[in-house]
Amino acid sequence: MNSYEIAVIPGDGIGKEVVPAALKVLEAAAQIDGGLAFKWTKFPWSCEYYLEHGRMMPSDGISTLRSFDQIFLGAVGMPDLVQDHISLWGLLIHIRREMKQAVNVRPAKLLRGLRSPLREPKDFDLVVVRENSEGEYSEIGGRIHRGPDEMAIQNAVFTRKATERVMNHAFELAKDRKGHVTSATKSNGITYSMPFWDDVFKGVCTAYPDISTSAIHIDALAAFFVMKPQIFDVIVASNLFGDILTDLGGAIMGSIGIAPAANLNLEREYPSMFEPVHGSAPDIAGKGLANPIGQIWTAKMMLDFLGYKEIGELVLAAIEDTLEAGVKTRDLGGNATTSEVTQSILDHLLNKQGS
Amino acid sequence: MNSYEIAVIPGDGIGKEVVPAALKVLEAAAQIDGGLAFKWTKFPWSCEYYLEHGRMMPSDGISTLRSFDQIFLGAVGMPDLVQDHISLWGLLIHIRREMKQAVNVRPAKLLRGLRSPLREPKDFDLVVVRENSEGEYSEIGGRIHRGPDEMAIQNAVFTRKATERVMNHAFELAKDRKGHVTSATKSNGITYSMPFWDDVFKGVCTAYPDISTSAIHIDALAAFFVMKPQIFDVIVASNLFGDILTDLGGAIMGSIGIAPAANLNLEREYPSMFEPVHGSAPDIAGKGLANPIGQIWTAKMMLDFLGYKEIGELVLAAIEDTLEAGVKTRDLGGNATTSEVTQSILDHLLNKQGS
Ligand SMILES: CC(C)[C@H](C(=O)O)[C@@H](O)C(=O)O
Ligand SMILES: CC(C)[C@H](C(=O)O)[C@@H](O)C(=O)O
Repeated sequence: MNSYEIAVIPGDGIGKEVVPAALKVLEAAAQIDGGLAFKWTKFPWSCEYYLEHGRMMPSDGISTLRSFDQIFLGAVGMPDLVQDHISLWGLLIHIRREMKQAVNVRPAKLLRGLRSPLREPKDFDLVVVRENSEGEYSEIGGRIHRGPDEMAIQNAVFTRKATERVMNHAFELAKDRKGHVTSATKSNGITYSMPFWDDVFKGVCTAYPDISTSAIHIDALAAFFVMKPQIFDVIVASNLFGDILTDLGGAIMGSIGIAPAANLNLEREYPSMFEPVHGSAPDIAGKGLANPIGQIWTAKMMLDFLGYKEIGELVLAAIEDTLEAGVKTRDLGGNATTSEVTQSILDHLLNKQGS
Repeated sequence: MNSYEIAVIPGDGIGKEVVPAALKVLEAAAQIDGGLAFKWTKFPWSCEYYLEHGRMMPSDGISTLRSFDQIFLGAVGMPDLVQDHISLWGLLIHIRREMKQAVNVRPAKLLRGLRSPLREPKDFDLVVVRENSEGEYSEIGGRIHRGPDEMAIQNAVFTRKATERVMNHAFELAKDRKGHVTSATKSNGITYSMPFWDDVFKGVCTAYPDISTSAIHIDALAAFFVMKPQIFDVIVASNLFGDILTDLGGAIMGSIGIAPAANLNLEREYPSMFEPVHGSAPDIAGKGLANPIGQIWTAKMMLDFLGYKEIGELVLAAIEDTLEAGVKTRDLGGNATTSEVTQSILDHLLNKQGS
């Protein structure tokens, strides 16, 4: 029996609805495997926690989390209560950095049973590999002057080490896929970081002569997500560009509510964190309207990372069966609740296994 | 007779095809008005010019341009010959900055006769007001170390003055439109510039109590361009975010080949520059395949700025008539050439006027 200790952080808003849903699916996956078990330990770290304790997580939070195998997180943010940059840098981004989860892997593909908002959504199947430790998301900068002369400066930091790491991972993924890597750049407008990014990309390319490559400016790349997403295989992007492209990836699939993500510590020195692309969606929280599929597909990515790819495939198939059966939340044009969708996925998963 | 001196810079690639097309339409517009005349002065500044002279434009290029009323530019860039950041910062961005064209206005709407790649492209009609003088596009930064420790730092610079200016213009536009302004932010991830942007936005909001507002993170905002573009009216965005959103705007219209833009010096101290959203598209250049509509719609924006709004409307109507008649270039699914589309627009424009 392989038993995994998982730290569970539902977080805010719909995180508290979709995380329990996904845990049920992970329990079912363990049951199917027979040799797999999970031990869940829940942490209430969130904006509510902040309002009570003045911080998003306790000061020993990171060392507590380091004793776990993996982290399973819902969503963070309640902008009406706590400013976003405080809540996010105090929890989500804090964990990504402290756990050296330097690569964020985010697939987008046309699922069976889904209606894309694109008229002719050819059969796209892409994965964005997002740099997750530096880049445009830095805490370096500040403001100067008060009044009309006020200004803010923000530093983006790109190191060769982190840039090569994320690019190498993109190329490794491409080997087992369609063999193409696209670099998201903007070296025509951004004069230091992006030409540097391009140079590092050119260097990494030479190490993978069998992989074909292209470099596309982020503005055109975003447009291509709408015009012809089927041309992409693996896309490697900076922290910010990866963030934008993956919400777009959710949109062309049919809803950002289904887009999954994995914040990976590739070296497995610290736990990785599995957390969907969508946010806490305070406007629909607590009403049973949240789409659990993003969190459940994210659970599948955790299964993959733990080495349970076959069961992971069953989970994805159960998601697609559920969509094909028309059991969909409101964001996908249906009227099913969070628990109805979850139950349908569980039914399909357990039946499939029985058949 | 009002006669305007226009500096014409076709630039590179398809710029050399679509600019002459748009000049024909401007000539027709002048003919219709009767009291309007243009004097064109062409400048060959481009990547080819660079290869010959070692710079994109002569050292007195800016002072030469300052004697004109407006600048009409095609596209810049031949990445196989000249690195993008050299060609763009040597010409396009150089002019934007030196002429203090601090605001870039870029509409996107569903035109008659166009097939959007969106399945249900409700009747969207939005305009992105892009900060055009600073932000993420800065020449401040650099690299340090060679080898594995190499890194690049890029500074984004946001001043209250430029931020307020672009936001004020967005609110002024909203007054004559649907009365809503959306701010494109990313203050949950980017810790200094974007919270500053949010603060300035809140301040400007209070000066326009009749305009409703929202602030949306750029990742979600990009997704909304695909999911529900009809919710937007005026969107105010930083240099980079505006760049990305306006290519997306082109995509949801049906092609970035039709998206127009105006780099405005609102104070009219120096010439403004009219230049479409699309680039030089070297892959299709010289083949008669380029869509002239982006450049012609851009010409309409120049007519508007000069005070000829009625004729501008006729130009847009002639574009729509042409699309409705099915005269479309390849990017829009048709097989008409650049000159066939141009001729059709001219015919519709001149007929309309006669009728
Ligand atoms: C060519 C490039 C530098 C330019 C920009 O990013 O401003 C273009 O994409 C645009 O939108 O006008
Ligand atoms: C909430 C926010 C800070 C976060 C990000 O930008 O990384 C989110 O959008 C994501 O994509 O995980």
